[in-house]
Amino acid sequence: MKPKNKLKIINDPIYGFITLPGDLIFQLMEHRYFQRLRRISQMGMSYIVYPGAHHTRFQHALGAMFLMQKAIYVLRSKGVAISDAEREALLIAILLHDIGHGPFSHAMEHSIVESVGHEYLSLAFMKKLNEEFHGKLTMAIDIFTNQYPRKFMHQMVSGQLDMDRLDYLRRDSFYTGVSEGAINTERLITMLHVHEDTLVVEEKGIYSVEKFIVARRLMYWQVYLHKTSLVAEQLLLRLLKRAKELSQQGVSLPATPALHYFLTTPISKDSFSSEGLEQFSKLDDYDIVSAIKMWIDVEDAVLRTIAKMLLHRDLLKIKMKKKPIPSERKQSKKSALMKREGFTEAEADYFVFEGVISNLAYRMDHNAIILLRKNGKMIDVAKASDQLNIEALSETVIKYYLCYPKSL
Amino acid sequence: MKPKNKLKIINDPIYGFITLPGDLIFQLMEHRYFQRLRRISQMGMSYIVYPGAHHTRFQHALGAMFLMQKAIYVLRSKGVAISDAEREALLIAILLHDIGHGPFSHAMEHSIVESVGHEYLSLAFMKKLNEEFHGKLTMAIDIFTNQYPRKFMHQMVSGQLDMDRLDYLRRDSFYTGVSEGAINTERLITMLHVHEDTLVVEEKGIYSVEKFIVARRLMYWQVYLHKTSLVAEQLLLRLLKRAKELSQQGVSLPATPALHYFLTTPISKDSFSSEGLEQFSKLDDYDIVSAIKMWIDVEDAVLRTIAKMLLHRDLLKIKMKKKPIPSERKQSKKSALMKREGFTEAEADYFVFEGVISNLAYRMDHNAIILLRKNGKMIDVAKASDQLNIEALSETVIKYYLCYPKSL
Amino acid sequence: MKPKNKLKIINDPIYGFITLPGDLIFQLMEHRYFQRLRRISQMGMSYIVYPGAHHTRFQHALGAMFLMQKAIYVLRSKGVAISDAEREALLIAILLHDIGHGPFSHAMEHSIVESVGHEYLSLAFMKKLNEEFHGKLTMAIDIFTNQYPRKFMHQMVSGQLDMDRLDYLRRDSFYTGVSEGAINTERLITMLHVHEDTLVVEEKGIYSVEKFIVARRLMYWQVYLHKTSLVAEQLLLRLLKRAKELSQQGVSLPATPALHYFLTTPISKDSFSSEGLEQFSKLDDYDIVSAIKMWIDVEDAVLRTIAKMLLHRDLLKIKMKKKPIPSERKQSKKSALMKREGFTEAEADYFVFEGVISNLAYRMDHNAIILLRKNGKMIDVAKASDQLNIEALSETVIKYYLCYPKSL
Amino acid sequence: MKPKNKLKIINDPIYGFITLPGDLIFQLMEHRYFQRLRRISQMGMSYIVYPGAHHTRFQHALGAMFLMQKAIYVLRSKGVAISDAEREALLIAILLHDIGHGPFSHAMEHSIVESVGHEYLSLAFMKKLNEEFHGKLTMAIDIFTNQYPRKFMHQMVSGQLDMDRLDYLRRDSFYTGVSEGAINTERLITMLHVHEDTLVVEEKGIYSVEKFIVARRLMYWQVYLHKTSLVAEQLLLRLLKRAKELSQQGVSLPATPALHYFLTTPISKDSFSSEGLEQFSKLDDYDIVSAIKMWIDVEDAVLRTIAKMLLHRDLLKIKMKKKPIPSERKQSKKSALMKREGFTEAEADYFVFEGVISNLAYRMDHNAIILLRKNGKMIDVAKASDQLNIEALSETVIKYYLCYPKSL
Repeated sequence: MKPKNKLKIINDPIYGFITLPGDLIFQLMEHRYFQRLRRISQMGMSYIVYPGAHHTRFQHALGAMFLMQKAIYVLRSKGVAISDAEREALLIAILLHDIGHGPFSHAMEHSIVESVGHEYLSLAFMKKLNEEFHGKLTMAIDIFTNQYPRKFMHQMVSGQLDMDRLDYLRRDSFYTGVSEGAINTERLITMLHVHEDTLVVEEKGIYSVEKFIVARRLMYWQVYLHKTSLVAEQLLLRLLKRAKELSQQGVSLPATPALHYFLTTPISKDSFSSEGLEQFSKLDDYDIVSAIKMWIDVEDAVLRTIAKMLLHRDLLKIKMKKKPIPSERKQSKKSALMKREGFTEAEADYFVFEGVISNLAYRMDHNAIILLRKNGKMIDVAKASDQLNIEALSETVIKYYLCYPKSL
Repeated sequence: MKPKNKLKIINDPIYGFITLPGDLIFQLMEHRYFQRLRRISQMGMSYIVYPGAHHTRFQHALGAMFLMQKAIYVLRSKGVAISDAEREALLIAILLHDIGHGPFSHAMEHSIVESVGHEYLSLAFMKKLNEEFHGKLTMAIDIFTNQYPRKFMHQMVSGQLDMDRLDYLRRDSFYTGVSEGAINTERLITMLHVHEDTLVVEEKGIYSVEKFIVARRLMYWQVYLHKTSLVAEQLLLRLLKRAKELSQQGVSLPATPALHYFLTTPISKDSFSSEGLEQFSKLDDYDIVSAIKMWIDVEDAVLRTIAKMLLHRDLLKIKMKKKPIPSERKQSKKSALMKREGFTEAEADYFVFEGVISNLAYRMDHNAIILLRKNGKMIDVAKASDQLNIEALSETVIKYYLCYPKSL
Repeated sequence: MKPKNKLKIINDPIYGFITLPGDLIFQLMEHRYFQRLRRISQMGMSYIVYPGAHHTRFQHALGAMFLMQKAIYVLRSKGVAISDAEREALLIAILLHDIGHGPFSHAMEHSIVESVGHEYLSLAFMKKLNEEFHGKLTMAIDIFTNQYPRKFMHQMVSGQLDMDRLDYLRRDSFYTGVSEGAINTERLITMLHVHEDTLVVEEKGIYSVEKFIVARRLMYWQVYLHKTSLVAEQLLLRLLKRAKELSQQGVSLPATPALHYFLTTPISKDSFSSEGLEQFSKLDDYDIVSAIKMWIDVEDAVLRTIAKMLLHRDLLKIKMKKKPIPSERKQSKKSALMKREGFTEAEADYFVFEGVISNLAYRMDHNAIILLRKNGKMIDVAKASDQLNIEALSETVIKYYLCYPKSL
Repeated sequence: MKPKNKLKIINDPIYGFITLPGDLIFQLMEHRYFQRLRRISQMGMSYIVYPGAHHTRFQHALGAMFLMQKAIYVLRSKGVAISDAEREALLIAILLHDIGHGPFSHAMEHSIVESVGHEYLSLAFMKKLNEEFHGKLTMAIDIFTNQYPRKFMHQMVSGQLDMDRLDYLRRDSFYTGVSEGAINTERLITMLHVHEDTLVVEEKGIYSVEKFIVARRLMYWQVYLHKTSLVAEQLLLRLLKRAKELSQQGVSLPATPALHYFLTTPISKDSFSSEGLEQFSKLDDYDIVSAIKMWIDVEDAVLRTIAKMLLHRDLLKIKMKKKPIPSERKQSKKSALMKREGFTEAEADYFVFEGVISNLAYRMDHNAIILLRKNGKMIDVAKASDQLNIEALSETVIKYYLCYPKSL
């Protein structure tokens, strides 16, 4: 007789082993839509600054599902009723929450996939999969879109303390080596509870929540909004925008078929109800990076120059300030560039530009992190703190930047 | 020919290997005064709550010295001149900074070693060792007592970001398993610099400093001031106080010779210039714990009861509040106990008592953590933060507690 | 309404959180017999070489129970039927497997608690607890003593790949900082299975098992049988033996009551059916170490000298060889010592002695580690290896040592 | 005055911070030849099995350089004279040792870059860089090619215990999550020494070396030669071979310019003295993967089918045995496929094929790992072991495999 082994297991450098719970989830994971996430880097161009940051959305999705398994186990142990069907739906919802991410999402969404966000696309993929799987994803979709009556379940998928965030902060901290960004996912999850259909944290978890918020703030300013990554992302956005402009003017640029589709076709949300979604499902980091590599030889000086900057990591200079940067500074840099390179103003705008970034460490609103007092009362964590430090972190921080060529 | 190996190495679970730099330091480490630290737990009775917390002051002293080696390497790399003699003095000062700690220091200092703090005793030991080592510790003592002209060196030994604190926060976090308390000592040290004879942190380190302050705050409330540890420490203090009272009344209590000395002899700072220091050098956790174990059978009901509580971890109940607890509550508990046990008021005070604890996460004073801006200006980290969150943490937090027997 | 929280949780530096499953186990853990393990160091005097090694048998017992929970979860997932009663019994059996360990067990068993091993005492404690808990430990005792019909359960508690060993190897490696000794407990447990009532490892786990055996071998020679620890343990054994001799000759030695009992009373297995067990339950590291500290001032030169050696870490010299050391070497050292110190031969034997240590990395017998082939056949791991390396490790390694005073 | 900061630092998830020592090394690292390694995965297609394995040769090269810094520090501390020029040369040699690796090296070397190994290409790149840097790499090249008189230096770059191997084993273990493969690089390096111009390990390091060899063996069979990765690599090799055949027959396949060059041009070692090296410097993972993605739509059934298999991770079945697999099995599978798909025999060979893999855990030859005894004698580690287990591991293990379509 042959032994049985019902455990499907995947190695993960952070959590050790991730067990795949059940056949449906295994089949979803094997689907080419999901497998595409293996070719999409979680952190876009951050590897330019943090060479270790080559992990993918595939790993993140599995990690978030692993944390969801832990959270369900904790909640059930505390007497929160979660049926097996709800459990599966929660796991599917978190597994697929990012399935609509394209390569370098932020840059793409502001250039070639105009105005269509990844949440919209994730939902589109889930609906498509729901057809293929004969309606088995309906409850997961309801949770994902917050249509499901038990609201705390949506909060586990999307909220200020959801499994998505818990995994990506820990994972990004791990792979960048910025270990101060590490959060204790295990402890935070152990302190979760549900009260009046709201996901809450037990009172004694207040210091862990504080530390979570500060770690997140650190990751934003030190990693996600790192000056060098910011320049790279802005350049990538402009590269794609320029390529789309040229393509629509009839210039033929070397590109893979999927990228070619998005460069030459006008896109709207409707596009993704038909051919667009299929094309999108073929697009990944390899299309973008191989395009950059080919475009270092194209005729257009703007496109060629940006491609070289990105490939050889020889980026623009950036100044970042707490106050708006006087417009004369930008203007004078631009004039100098136009003069030197013979650029039009529109062309010079690709290399001299300003922008604003902002981050809110903690949001005091309907999505606040709620503490559950021992007496059963619920309170916003910012109000519960001994000191006003979390409340202080609920002010948005804004920074202004100006980019221009190093040689100017 | 036999191979030479000049590296004296000690294993450390946190840093891997700690190399002992030079013969003098090796000899100090081998001295019985320093070896005594092997028998003194770093965290007193915290193991009652965190069973992993059995590390010793010996390990902490070595760890702090290891970090000092790192810090000196970083500062020298940045052009700060530190002579070899200064390096050795810094290493000795940090190695010996805690050598005057007795077992369960806090409880002892408030009972049998009245009014004499561990800093005073550390200095007394250093002076004694300086005699034995023919003046080789003079510069180390000058740094320790802030007599040395280069003030930043004292700050490395004793300040808001000194090597002592960097090691103990990390080490205590590691051994308790409260991993959110972990700080990135390596990154913090890498960002140290010296400017105008002041130890500073480079500007880009601001988020790491923020996180350090929040981690420290978390360790205070979650670990160092944990309710159960607090009760245990208060009971231990009262146990020793009672034992000293009884001893001075002529009651003979079983005790090791060194503990017997401190129970029967009135102590002042002067005591430590003569016999007292030698007796103190024989006192460690084993004297205290073996006394507790023997005192569960003594005649005095107060002493016996406290000893049993500590040994069997069956402690008093504690209520902790943000506001002072009305005195009637204490009074009524005390009356009930006096009635039930036939205790005098003084005896009941051993079991029903109130107190105050406070913690300041960050101190904005002459000892502040100073950031060094890129333009060369220095600024208090609390003022440099984008948001006012660190400033918020510079308010002292006070909590009030009342302890009384569970059965009441 | 107040929220419920059914999770009883303990922090552990290695596994994060350990959850206590159920009231009975919680009560056993709170029992003073089990709490005593907080005062018994897991690694005896190894901290002399590895200053981090101050973890206790209390932590180890909880850790082994944690691994048992994992193993049961894995086996059940693979279809092995384990009832809830069996689960509780397995957890209790592993929790209490070491409850009979005294302080510095090996040294004690060869001196003052002559010939009574810790397994015997663990069983005696379990039986006593079984009375107190009205027979609820009966199945646990059956598993512990291998009376329970399902034999694989005993193997999980005591075998070449039991939860005891998995925890202590990992824990000792962690606390000593000898990270090569670390084993991947999680992976090994994930590969466990049961076949024909035998605990087996799935075939693909062969390399993990190999690495486990090699890591264990490394821990033996590098840590457990480290030369310095070996000398310290031999001296401790002789210290206790000498103290018992003197006590039985009527010499009054300072000692805590529990230690005094064992020094003055002849001990046999029968002793533990009555008063002996109660006395033993009061004995821990603090009795031994405080005795060492007091004995540095006793009149007997042998006892005093050994006590000083241990306290000041100024031990004997040791030579270790692969071949027996010629008896003349010992004899000449002994004569020199007798002459110099005026010792009798019997007294000199305390300081000049030889011995043998041996270790078997892997045992090919009825207790072998069994691999389960994909075809359902079982095979000894040593036979399954591609190369003969594991078989090579099933030869006993013997080393011979001679100890004598450094000054000779 | 602005503060200086001479430390150039890179974050690494494994070692924390990697400091770049000096300008020349910084410039080499910034060179586009070296930056290319950011786009070359260290483990080829292993991410198919281990989703975390997306680290690059860029990180590995920096990590190996970091270890070289450590090793030089250790050797100098033990009195081994290493001049500053030699130090720089060692660091450069290890930094550039893999610079000639192409994408998926093994598959490429057996297909489109016929017969030219990566060592040859690394040397070609070094020579080119030496021209650009006016001869500053000459000593590094001498060490790399073992022309430098001090032979131990070459052993540090290329030997059974070189910095390359120490980094990649640890790094691959870390990123795959196969933590049993982890080696204690720090301890191994601490035990290095040089004796009679030979790199040796101090005697007490024997168990660490044993464990290193076993960990390496585990990584080979569990990770590098994992069945699924093996199939993927064999398919990739055949994909490229087929693409080159078709290209040389005049079929036009979509491909990036650099890949197009290697598909259409006959290659020999001479190719790399001219245009070839420049083309090779443009080739990375993105060329290969974007080709696979485009080739799923080509006309040729063989190429198209392999591309789909690789992209959708729907690979061939593989049988692995300790003995050669009877040729009839292969023949019958091939006939079935030819019949079903109408393939010629040559075409069927792409899908039904056999092969041999072998691994030698430890090599007892001129490159053996040498232990240095305390008496100054040197001995092969396999001979020094107490047991014959390392000698047992110096036998080559051979396995035979057969691949064929799952549907057969």
